[in-house]
Formats: sequence, C-alpha cells, structure tokens
Amino acid sequence: MNFLKPGFTHKDLLNIDDDDLPLLADEVRAVIIDTVRKNGGHLGSSLGVVELTIAMLKVFDPLNDRIIFDVGHQSYPYKILTDRFDQFHTLRQKDGLSGFPRRNESPYDHFNTGHSSTSISAALGYAKARDLLGENRNVVAFIGDASLINGLAFEALNYVHETNSRLIIILNDNRHSISNRVGGFSTVLAELSANTWYRGIKNFFRRHFPEKRSPYEGSTNPLARARNLIKAFTRPINLFDKLGIKYWGPFDGHDIANAVRMLTLAKNYYRPVILHFNTVKGKGLPEAEANPTKYHQVSPAGTPKFRTWSEAASEIAEELAMKDERIVCFTAAMMTGVKLERFSREFPGRFFDVGIAESHMLTMAAGLAAGGMRPWVFIYSTFLQRAMDQLMHDIALQNLPVVIMVDRAGLAGSDGDTHQGMLDIPWGRSVPNLEIYAPCDEDSLRECMIAASKREGPTLIRYPRGKIPHGKISVDSHGEGIVKIHDGHSWALFGNGSSVGIMLDVRDMAGNEGVDVPAVYDVRRVKPVDAEELCGILGCYKAVAVLEDNYMAGGFGEAFGAVIAEKGLGVKLLRFGVPDVCVKHATQEQQRELYGITARNIIDSYRNEA
Amino acid sequence: MNFLKPGFTHKDLLNIDDDDLPLLADEVRAVIIDTVRKNGGHLGSSLGVVELTIAMLKVFDPLNDRIIFDVGHQSYPYKILTDRFDQFHTLRQKDGLSGFPRRNESPYDHFNTGHSSTSISAALGYAKARDLLGENRNVVAFIGDASLINGLAFEALNYVHETNSRLIIILNDNRHSISNRVGGFSTVLAELSANTWYRGIKNFFRRHFPEKRSPYEGSTNPLARARNLIKAFTRPINLFDKLGIKYWGPFDGHDIANAVRMLTLAKNYYRPVILHFNTVKGKGLPEAEANPTKYHQVSPAGTPKFRTWSEAASEIAEELAMKDERIVCFTAAMMTGVKLERFSREFPGRFFDVGIAESHMLTMAAGLAAGGMRPWVFIYSTFLQRAMDQLMHDIALQNLPVVIMVDRAGLAGSDGDTHQGMLDIPWGRSVPNLEIYAPCDEDSLRECMIAASKREGPTLIRYPRGKIPHGKISVDSHGEGIVKIHDGHSWALFGNGSSVGIMLDVRDMAGNEGVDVPAVYDVRRVKPVDAEELCGILGCYKAVAVLEDNYMAGGFGEAFGAVIAEKGLGVKLLRFGVPDVCVKHATQEQQRELYGITARNIIDSYRNEA
Repeated sequence: MNFLKPGFTHKDLLNIDDDDLPLLADEVRAVIIDTVRKNGGHLGSSLGVVELTIAMLKVFDPLNDRIIFDVGHQSYPYKILTDRFDQFHTLRQKDGLSGFPRRNESPYDHFNTGHSSTSISAALGYAKARDLLGENRNVVAFIGDASLINGLAFEALNYVHETNSRLIIILNDNRHSISNRVGGFSTVLAELSANTWYRGIKNFFRRHFPEKRSPYEGSTNPLARARNLIKAFTRPINLFDKLGIKYWGPFDGHDIANAVRMLTLAKNYYRPVILHFNTVKGKGLPEAEANPTKYHQVSPAGTPKFRTWSEAASEIAEELAMKDERIVCFTAAMMTGVKLERFSREFPGRFFDVGIAESHMLTMAAGLAAGGMRPWVFIYSTFLQRAMDQLMHDIALQNLPVVIMVDRAGLAGSDGDTHQGMLDIPWGRSVPNLEIYAPCDEDSLRECMIAASKREGPTLIRYPRGKIPHGKISVDSHGEGIVKIHDGHSWALFGNGSSVGIMLDVRDMAGNEGVDVPAVYDVRRVKPVDAEELCGILGCYKAVAVLEDNYMAGGFGEAFGAVIAEKGLGVKLLRFGVPDVCVKHATQEQQRELYGITARNIIDSYRNEA
Repeated sequence: MNFLKPGFTHKDLLNIDDDDLPLLADEVRAVIIDTVRKNGGHLGSSLGVVELTIAMLKVFDPLNDRIIFDVGHQSYPYKILTDRFDQFHTLRQKDGLSGFPRRNESPYDHFNTGHSSTSISAALGYAKARDLLGENRNVVAFIGDASLINGLAFEALNYVHETNSRLIIILNDNRHSISNRVGGFSTVLAELSANTWYRGIKNFFRRHFPEKRSPYEGSTNPLARARNLIKAFTRPINLFDKLGIKYWGPFDGHDIANAVRMLTLAKNYYRPVILHFNTVKGKGLPEAEANPTKYHQVSPAGTPKFRTWSEAASEIAEELAMKDERIVCFTAAMMTGVKLERFSREFPGRFFDVGIAESHMLTMAAGLAAGGMRPWVFIYSTFLQRAMDQLMHDIALQNLPVVIMVDRAGLAGSDGDTHQGMLDIPWGRSVPNLEIYAPCDEDSLRECMIAASKREGPTLIRYPRGKIPHGKISVDSHGEGIVKIHDGHSWALFGNGSSVGIMLDVRDMAGNEGVDVPAVYDVRRVKPVDAEELCGILGCYKAVAVLEDNYMAGGFGEAFGAVIAEKGLGVKLLRFGVPDVCVKHATQEQQRELYGITARNIIDSYRNEA
C-alpha cells in the first residue's frame, strides 16, 4: 500500500495528487475485498462506488457538508477514507465498525441508515435546517437506482420542488442494486443512460477547466449558469426535470477526474440537482462483476454450510404451490435472501419480485387474495416494518388469506440495529384477524405453513436467520397453539422459534446442577392465545419463565402476565428477551449473551428470584 | 325525484336514456347534499365524481368487473347507484352504510379502503388474479390526484410495467383532493391538463361514434388501435407513458357522454391505460366549489361548537414556536384537520404540508432534527401506521428530537374501522428511545408539549378526536409519569386521555351505589414506565382496573399485568379497552358502550370479579 497506511485520514486524501487517485482506488478496493472476505458484509455495492466516494471526498468537506448514504451498504470506501482505515478490520464485529453509517461511530456520518430510500427525505430535512439556521454547507444524498423506486424516495423527489432548497442528489446507477432492477422506472433510467448529449458538455468543460486546476476552483455560479444554457438546448426532457430537479448526466462513475468536475459544478449550482452516474457493481473483482447478486452480500470465509430456515421455507412453499394453483409468491428485491430463486424458475408466472416496494407488495397481495388467489409474501422482519399499515388496512381488516413469511425474525446478528427482527411480534399482536406462528424446527414450520394454506384469513409465520433444526427438535413437538414438549414440576419454560433450543439446554443444565427440571412449552402460535387454555397451563406451576426473541415490550410475555394477574393465579413470572434498547451489531450468540437470553442466566434467575 | 325512487337499483340506471343521465346526476347530488348535511361525511369528493360514476356504471358491470376506489370517500354516488339508495340515509351511522367501500356491505364493493393510494396495487392484484384464473373481467382503479403522489401509488405505477396485465386507471384530477396539491408531480399533471391534443381526438370520435349509438358498441380493438396511432403523433411524451402505461386525456369529467365513450375505449384496450379526467371538487354546490378544503368533510347539522384537542394542540405549538425558533411543524395533507392553518400563516417558513406522504414526512423531520431543528409532526393516529418504520428506523434509532403529535387517537367514531386510532400505543410501546404521553386535559397537554420541547429524543403525544376538557380535569392532575388524581381504598383505576373522564364517573357512581370508591391514577406517560414506581403503587390495592383507549393487545394493561406477575403482587387485574376486532363505524360513545369502556360496566365488573 502506497497511500493507505496506518493512521490514514481524510486530510491525507486531500494531499494525494489527482493522477494518483486511481491508485488509491485500487488500494481501497483491496482493503474492502480482504476485509469482507474475512468478516462478511456487503461487497458489490461498495466496490462500485470507490471512485465516486473519492470524488465526493475531494469536492465536499465531509465534516461540514452532509453526505447522506442511502441504505448505507455502499459506505465502506467512505469509512476507510474518513479516518476509519485503522479500524476497518473490525467491520461488523461486536464493538467494531458498523456495516452502515452510524452517527455515534464517527463525526463524518450524518444519518444512520440500513433500510432503503431515506436519503432524499433526510437530505431535504438537512437542507431545510441549513437554510433556516443560516448555515453554509452542502447537502448530498447518495442513492442507488434500486432505492429510487421505493415510494419513500418518490415522495421525497416529489417534494424537492416545494422546498426549493439547494440539494445535490447523486444517483449511483449500477442497474443491479440488489437483484435486478424492477419496474417502469428502469426504462426511464435506461433512456437517460442511452443519450449522449453529456459528452459534448464534458468536452466543453474539459476545454474550459483544464486538469491541472484544483477542483475547488472548478466553477462559479455564472459559469454553471452558462453550462446550463447549453444544456437547455441539448438535453432531452426527463422525469427529474419535470419534478423540478435539474438533471445532469449520465456520467461514468469510475472516472474520478470527471466526477470531481461535475460534483464541483453541482456544489456551485443554486438549485436542486441530480447527477446520474453509471457504475459497475462489484467493480474490480471479476467474479463480483459477473454475478452481482451473489456478491451483493457475502458470508465470512469459513462459514459452515448448513440448511437454513429460508431454504426450508421456500422448499415447502414449492411443495404447497405444486398442489394449490392459487398460491403465488412475492418478494421485494430479496429473492436470493429468502431463497426463492428456484420457485421463481419453477413457477415463473406465479412469482413476483416487486423491487424495494414492500408497501405495494402487501397491498397487491391483498388484491390477489381478494381476487381468489393465495399470495405468500416473503419478507425480512425488519422490512415488514415498512408495510405495517398495508398489513393492517389492506389485509387484516379485510381478513384476506395472505401468508406473510417473516424471515430474519428475532436477533439477526451483524447488520446492526436497523436490521433486527424485533417488532413483528410486538406490532403484529395488535393486528385483528392476524394469526402469528413461530415454528421451532422444520417439521413445525411445515405444519404451520400447511395450516396457513388452509386458513381463510391472514397468517404471519416468523422464523429466524440461520440454521434450521432438522425434522423435530423433540419427539413431542406436534400440534398448534401452546405445545408441551417436556413435563416438569414447580416451574415451566415458554418460548418459541430459536428459544426452544435454549429451553432444552435449560432442562439439561438444571438436571446437571440439581435444580428443579422445568417443563417446556412451545408457544408455537403467538396469536390468538386462548386465555382459558393458557390459564389452565400456567396454573400448574409456581413459576414460569417466558423467553422471547423480540422486544419484550408488546411481546407475548406481557400477555402472559396479564392472564396471570387477571386470573389471580399467583404464579411468579420471569421474562427473558430483548429490552427497550437499540440492538447493536454482533453475532446472534453475542446478542443473546448480552441480553441474558441464555440457559445460564435463566437457571440463575430462577434460583435467585423464584 | 324522477329517477331515484325507493328500490332504485343498478339495473334501473341502465334503463335510463343517455340524454337523461345529467338529470340523474342532479338527483344523486341532491341526495348526497341532503344526507351529508344530516349525517356528516365527505362532501366535496363525492359531488365531484357523480358524472364519472354514472359513466363507469354504464360501461362496466359493477358485479363482475372490479371497480376499486382509492381512499373511498368519493364512493357515495356509487353506493347510491348500486342498490343502496334506500339505505343511504343511514350513512356513517351505527349499523348503517359505511362512508367507505366495504366488501361485507355490498357485492358491488370489491376492496375496502379508507387510507389513500392503495387502489392501483389492489387493482394490479385483482388483474393478475383474473389472468391466472382465466377470468374475464375489467379491473378499474379510480384514484384522485392527491393520492397519486403517495409512495404506495408510485410503487404500484412503477410495477404496472412488469405485470403486463390489462388494467384501467381512472385519474380523477380535481386539483384539491384534500388540501392543495403538493409537489413537483402537480406540475406534471398541470402540463398534461394544459395540452389540447385530446380535443382533436374527441372530435374524431364524435364523428365516428355518433351520439345515438349505444356506448357499449362504442369501439372495438382495431378502432382503439387506430385511435392510438393518431395519438402517437399528437400527444406529448409524458411520465405515464414512460412508466409503460398508456396515457389518455385529459377529459372533462363532468361530460357523461364523452366519459362513457372514453371508458368504452379503455374497456376494449389491450394494455394498461390511464384516463385523466378533470373534475371540480364540490361540483354543483357553489359554496363547496368555492371552498373545497372546508367542504371536504362536513359535520352533521346541529353539531355543537366546542374547543377541540386539535385546536388546543396547535395553539400550544404556536406558543412554543414563538419562543423557540428551531420549532417547525409538519402535516401530511391534514392542515385543516389538525388545525394548523393559523400556524402556517404565522410561521410560513417553518410549516410544511408534504401532501399525503406520511413516510417522507417523518424521515424529512428526522433530517431536520439531525440538522439542529425541532420538528413537530401532526398526524392522525391511523395515518401514523403508514410511517412506523420511519418512526423506528429514522427517528427512534437515532434518538432524534422529533415530536409526533398524534391526533384522533383512540376510538374515532363514524369513519369506521380504517380510521380508528387503535395502534399508536401498542406499536409505539416497542419503539426504543420513544416516550409516549397521553394527556387528559388542556393543562396536561401543555405540560406534555413543554416537556417534549425540552427532550433530546423522540416523543409521541396522543390525543383523542373531539372536545378537550378545559384547564385541569381535576385539581391534582399535575406532573408526569403516573399521577394520582384521587385517593381511594381497596381498588384503583388507571387510565389516560379520554379514559380519565370515565374514571371520574366511576368514582361518582361508586359513591352513589355504595361500592368502594376507587383511587384514580392518570397514566399520563405510557412509556417509559418505571416498574419499581408502578409496583409500589399497584401494591397498595387488592384490585386495579386499567382503562385503555386503544387495542388491549400490546397495550399498557398487559405491561401492568407483567409487573404484577413478575413482582408477585397478587393484585387482581381488570382490563377495559378495545378487544382484538375490527372497530365498526358508530359514534365514539356507542363504540365505548359496545366494548364496555363505561363507568357502568367497570363498576359491575368490579362487583362481580374482584
């Protein structure tokens, strides 16, 4: 490494000669590839924006200006180049760097992200705050093409016109942001990419701003206006212009010098402007360029291969779809994550990848269900947060037979606080007509899915990230509702999903340590709960411990408490789950340890408190 | 009335001579105006679409075809003309017609609505179901211009291209859907409205389809294609075309004969098509035409004037904004409803009406807060459901000082199940960093708002629809957290907001009937709850009753139950609130009666159970 040496800071970047910047880009790529191979993470997006990031950091002042990344999985080059090179090897590890921008990690990070399409709204807010406070800074939203089709981004684009604030939107168009780009809007972007007026502009500025000038002296407002005049004659009308946002582009996003030039113009422009850059996802790593979806996110080297919940769920969905022609499946740009590739090949007419459009997905599913079909929606728990009103208003209030398959439910590991599946149970419990299931192994997953396929109303099935216990986790784990897995005296454990394994560990540990061996119940159906049945079960014990892989506020542990207090049972309640905090990135094991959702802590708590 | 007579059905409409349809329109208008004056309801939107509705009902078969209304407050003419004329006088009353489309009310209603911008997604679902099931029906989404700017509608528009299903979108452009139209997209619609190519088309078809021909013989596919060919030369490129949706229009939405002609063409067209009609909101009622915002929704005649929660909240916001220049206020097309008109006049630079774009509103507010401002967001509880991820992901996880003023929280009356404020507390309770307040009178509202203005994190303040108790509802209602209002023995009542008045009634009734007089506590701060403090209070009583103006599932009553069971208090818990059902339209009083949230039921329950 010639440039990236221990202690590298943003100031060092500014001292690098323009001609050497492509070499710096190579070094940044090498660091990213090396680290992500070890730690896992988002590879393709970050490799695609190395040059653009360098250009942004040349043109803008990342401490005073506000560069806001959309989604944020493309922020690795930015992290490396803004004083975090030394810590970059801790990426996504407990107490290490987050895989996303985090304000509490660095003064260079201005807006936390993880979910898509927030950047333009956030940037508008920052821009308006700047105007009202009389500050002087640039506000930049850095957004990919896939994020642009989400409704939130459109609402923001539509509102740019009203705010009339100076704002720079950088569109990073890699045409593959997660899976393939979806929808009519991709045609708009393709048309824009195909037109060539910008070459003339580029040459004009090449002539007028020779390479040797500092990019900071690049242009002034009058020059920018002259440029605009030319543009007015040459460029085609486009959607952004119609929305009141000046459109410049498309440009090559891997040409640092040109990007610096264009960003400098934008910095000196007096109106909202969008700069369209074409980039190659996975740039610099041939296998990632060839297969951008596969290299969007990679697992750490040495991750053992195992059968995942997602694989099992999608296979069972295939079995059911084979028998019931009314079944169709949906995903929102997560086909690979939820393992629906094979389903999409086997049932091409019955599979819909709507792009990052979770809200639309649920309402369209409601329409299909109203029209006589049986839609199954596969979605990560954290992204279901984007479609809760559609679940309530369009699906549940109409009691439509839509099945919501909630993947990555519960503690989800190293993606951090924006990606935990903490809320599907607390929020879902108050949705009328909705039934909620949390199976604990492959057999119970199948049972839940078969039951859901026969219901005339909506069903939510949640399952965790990672390895699925094969077959039955225990001989007696059959049935729905609250299922007794093991007998016990004096106390009992209640949990579901990933907690079942922990409950079995508690039994073993209790036996080994001479503690009363608890009964174990699988709370397979979280909603509805039959209060009389539950009362009958709870009444058999002096103490019960409830384990939850979700926020305890609003969780089923509280519902258990209400039954105990309403029925006057006098049963001592112990609760284990995620408290009212932002869950930081770490492995799932480390997260459970942190919150005391462990056999050790449960045994100790029972000893001390019950 | 010549046409609208008792027993009027859709078949009668089909028998009315084309020349008489404008007279029918007049009669429909008279019925709407008369009924809405008596019952209250949405006036302007329905008056604006009388002719379009008649045209739709002439061209489409409303039982076999699927006409899907967006929002649905413009569905009154449709209800009157589809066999519900006789019941129309029961509009919005308990056990009467809903003010919105409801599948369980009529076989003519195909998709329940109430929230905006769902129609295109739902229609895509219906269209796809039709294609997969090999059915033969038309699917029509009927959407207003204000709904079109919501992200959900954009996600659906973007996806039309992918589905390649036959679909008809009718754009009812009244340029005033609730408040004024917001955003750059309005420019697009204005440009479309201003172009004149369609007059030529119209004349062409006038010549080729003389008036006397039945509209059902209006055109065939080849003719439609011929028309399309002409159009290709004449029309300007527009956004819809770019999204892969054929655009026809704009047309006069009050010309029934022409609307019939164009809808007939659309019915026979083989691709997704959008028909743009210009209409006048409030058409036929001069005062409503002149002031469409005021006549968007009207109260029943004879409604007493009183000071509302919304008025008090907005006035206090003005006071605070006067002292703190960092305060800005947001609303999403509900300026009149949340009473921010005066604020918008007094602080024009610090007021943002983003249109029906709740998600964007919360994320932009997060950006402003991150940028040093203090945004206050005014939103109905039911519409906050649209922005829960933005509350969680953008505001709460970053612990940003945004205040969410949740209007119409709790049972909200006659708008029906889509408009109840049941979920802000159950969903908000699991959002980290968020504090939740539910004041019970004007003094406590002011205290909560002042406290929120000083917090460095997010605060949600919920208040009900309707009349605010003036000043202090009780001499001791001071402080935050859990506030004791009255002493009592053996049992205690806990509630907040609108429940406080009921709790005081319980005390009076208990005194009168010789029942133990309960203590009364105002649970002003719903979150966080200090478990130790709560435990200390609960432990003083043999029984406690919790009153909730929200769904009990996920509510604070369950949290109380958990504390009782965890601390082994042996206190008997009684809970009163909204059970796990869809709340039907009725007055707030009737709704409380239905769910037993009444002093009478609380006294009786205490007698029988505690």
